[in-house]
Amino acid sequence: MRDAEAPIAPPEELITREELQLAARNHGMPLEALRYDITPVGLHYLLIHYDIPFVDPDTWKLTITGRVRRELALSLEDVRTRPATTVPVTMECAGNGRASLAPRPISQPWLLEAVSTAEWTGTLLRPILDEAGLEEDALEVVFAGADRGVDGGQEQDYERSLPVEEATRDDLLLAYEINGQPLPPQHGFPLRLIVPRWYGMAQVKWLRTITAVAEPFGGYQNVQRYRLRQEESELGEPLTRMAPRALMVPPGIPEYLSRTRVAPFGPCRLEGRAWSGGAPIVRVEVSADGGNTWGDADVGAPPAVTAWHPWSFRWEPKEPGAYVLCCRATDALGDTQPLQPPWNLGGYANNAVQRIAVSVIA
Amino acid sequence: MRDAEAPIAPPEELITREELQLAARNHGMPLEALRYDITPVGLHYLLIHYDIPFVDPDTWKLTITGRVRRELALSLEDVRTRPATTVPVTMECAGNGRASLAPRPISQPWLLEAVSTAEWTGTLLRPILDEAGLEEDALEVVFAGADRGVDGGQEQDYERSLPVEEATRDDLLLAYEINGQPLPPQHGFPLRLIVPRWYGMAQVKWLRTITAVAEPFGGYQNVQRYRLRQEESELGEPLTRMAPRALMVPPGIPEYLSRTRVAPFGPCRLEGRAWSGGAPIVRVEVSADGGNTWGDADVGAPPAVTAWHPWSFRWEPKEPGAYVLCCRATDALGDTQPLQPPWNLGGYANNAVQRIAVSVIA
Repeated sequence: MRDAEAPIAPPEELITREELQLAARNHGMPLEALRYDITPVGLHYLLIHYDIPFVDPDTWKLTITGRVRRELALSLEDVRTRPATTVPVTMECAGNGRASLAPRPISQPWLLEAVSTAEWTGTLLRPILDEAGLEEDALEVVFAGADRGVDGGQEQDYERSLPVEEATRDDLLLAYEINGQPLPPQHGFPLRLIVPRWYGMAQVKWLRTITAVAEPFGGYQNVQRYRLRQEESELGEPLTRMAPRALMVPPGIPEYLSRTRVAPFGPCRLEGRAWSGGAPIVRVEVSADGGNTWGDADVGAPPAVTAWHPWSFRWEPKEPGAYVLCCRATDALGDTQPLQPPWNLGGYANNAVQRIAVSVIA
Repeated sequence: MRDAEAPIAPPEELITREELQLAARNHGMPLEALRYDITPVGLHYLLIHYDIPFVDPDTWKLTITGRVRRELALSLEDVRTRPATTVPVTMECAGNGRASLAPRPISQPWLLEAVSTAEWTGTLLRPILDEAGLEEDALEVVFAGADRGVDGGQEQDYERSLPVEEATRDDLLLAYEINGQPLPPQHGFPLRLIVPRWYGMAQVKWLRTITAVAEPFGGYQNVQRYRLRQEESELGEPLTRMAPRALMVPPGIPEYLSRTRVAPFGPCRLEGRAWSGGAPIVRVEVSADGGNTWGDADVGAPPAVTAWHPWSFRWEPKEPGAYVLCCRATDALGDTQPLQPPWNLGGYANNAVQRIAVSVIA
C-alpha cells in the first residue's frame, strides 16, 4: 500500500526504477514534432495509468445512468450514427514538467514532452446528456473507463468526475477517431471523452459508463490525485484547465546522449507552439540569455480555439558561443509562465519556462 | 566529447537525467500489446538516435551509388510503382534489456519493451541493387538516413553498412508503409530499410543514399556502437541477428507506480510471443517459481517466418501467494535464453529471461 499522493524523492536523488518503468511505457512527443499543427498518430503523448484494456467493440456499450430521467445504453454503432464533429484539441498531461521539480514527486517522470494536438472526431456529449435528462439534483457527472488497477492501495477502474456545468458545456466530445482513423487501443478504443482546455486526466479513455451523481464524487483520481497542495493534510485545489505554456523546437542538431544542441553561426528561425486552457494566447516572448532579456515572437492563429498557436522568432546570435534559449507565453487573462517551477506535492502544472542550451559554432 | 561506447553507471546508481531524456522521447511497447499479432501503429517501439528529420517527399530522392555500374536516383513515385511486397517483421532494439544490467551502460535505458511486429509494405531491395549492378569488388553496402547529430564527438548522419551477402538477400525491403498506412515521420518517412531477423540498428530510417563500398565501412554506428565487447580496447563482434527471447503479457492488473501485478486465485491463461533472428522458435517454457522448474507452453505458428510466434500456457497456482513468473524461448539452432544477464560494454542483446512478480489473492 502506498501514500495517496506521490512520494517525494530527495533533491539529489536520480530517477528510480519505478519511474523508469513508467517512462518506458508512456511517452512524450519529441519536441521536433512541435513543427506539426496536428501531431501524427504515434507521436501524440501517452499516459496510461494501468494497462491498455482489451475492449470487444461488438459487445461494448456506453451506459448513461444515475441521476437521469432515462437510462441510455448506446452501442458503438449508435454513437457513430449520431451527428459527427471533428475538432483539433491540444492536450497536456497535468504532470508535464514534474521531473524538473526539486524535490521531485515520484510518478511518471515527465520533462516537457507531455503535450500534443490531435484532430478528434466523435459526437457531442451534450445532446446525449439532454436525451438522458439530468435530474435537477445532478451535481457532477462521473466518467468511468475500462482500465483497472491499484492506486493508493485501492483497486479501482479509472474514474473522473466533472462538475455538471463543465459536463454540459457544448464542446465536450465522445471521440471514436483520431486524425481520421479509428482510435488505436492506446488512445481509448472504442470511445474516449474529450474535454477541450482541460489537462489530460479529464479525457477518460476506454469510456464505458457515464453516471450523474447528486453528491460530490469521492473517487481516488478526483480526491487524492490531481490536486494542487503542499501537504498531504490539505484538501487542495483540483486541477482543471491547462496553464499557459510555450515550447520551442530545439534548434540545430542534438548530441545523442546529452541531447545538447549544436547550431551553425548565422540567423536562425526559432519556432514552436503556445497554448493555455484559460484563454487565447496573446503574446509569446523569446530570450537568448536564459531569461534576462526578452523579445516578442510572431504569434499565428491556432487551427481551432481549442488548439495551440504557432509562433516564430528570428534569432541572430551576435557571435559563436553558448546560449540558453527560453520562451514564455501569456494568455488573454494575463496569465503567464514563471521562471522558477511552482512546486506542489503531486508535481502538477509545472509550466516554468523551457530552457534549451545551444552551442553556436562558427 | 564522449567515450565512443556508452559510459558505465556504478551498480548502485539510479537512472540519470540524460537517460531520462532519452526515455521520455523514445518508447517501448507496453507488454500488454503482446496480445496483437501485428502491433498497432503508435504502440510499436521507437528508438530515434538524433531528431526526427523533416523530409519533403516531393524533392526526396533515393540515390544508389558507389561501386555500381549504373547510378540510380529514384523518386518516391519511382519506388512506389515498383512491385510491392508486404511482410510482417518482428523488430527488436539491440539495447533491449540494457537497464537491467549491473553495472549499467548509460544509453537509452530499455527494460524489456523494445520489441514489436509491424506489417511493412515496400519494394524489395535486391532487384534495385541488380539494376544498379554491384561491381565485383563491392564488399559492403552503406545505408544513410537523413537524421543527423553528434555521437562520440563526431557530427554524422546515421549510417549503417551490411556485408554484401546480407544486403543482397532476397527479403530486404525498402518500406514506405507500416500496417497499410504511409510511414509516419517517426518510422522513417518516406522510406526505410527493413532487414528481417536483424536488430533495429540495421533498419535505417529516412533512407536517402545507398552506397556500395569496396573497403570495410568505418562509420561510427558500425565500428564504435553496436558491438559486443567487454572493454573499449577490444574490436568486438558486430551485433547482427536477434537473440532468442520470449515475453509474456503480465497477468492480472498493475499497481500504478510499482507495476507489480495482482491476480485473482484460480486458473490463469498466460500468453505471449517468442522470436529469434537465428531460426524458428521450437520451444517456449514457463516457470512460476522464478526459474527453478519449467513447463512447456503451446507454441503457435508465426504470421510469417520473419515474425514472432504466439504462445500460451495454462497456469494453475496451488494457493494464493507471491509468485515469480518466467518464460524462456529456444530456437531450432538450440539457442536459448540465460537466467542471468550477459554483460557487455554497450548493454546489447541482453536476452535474460523475463521475471514478473505476481500476487495471487484469494
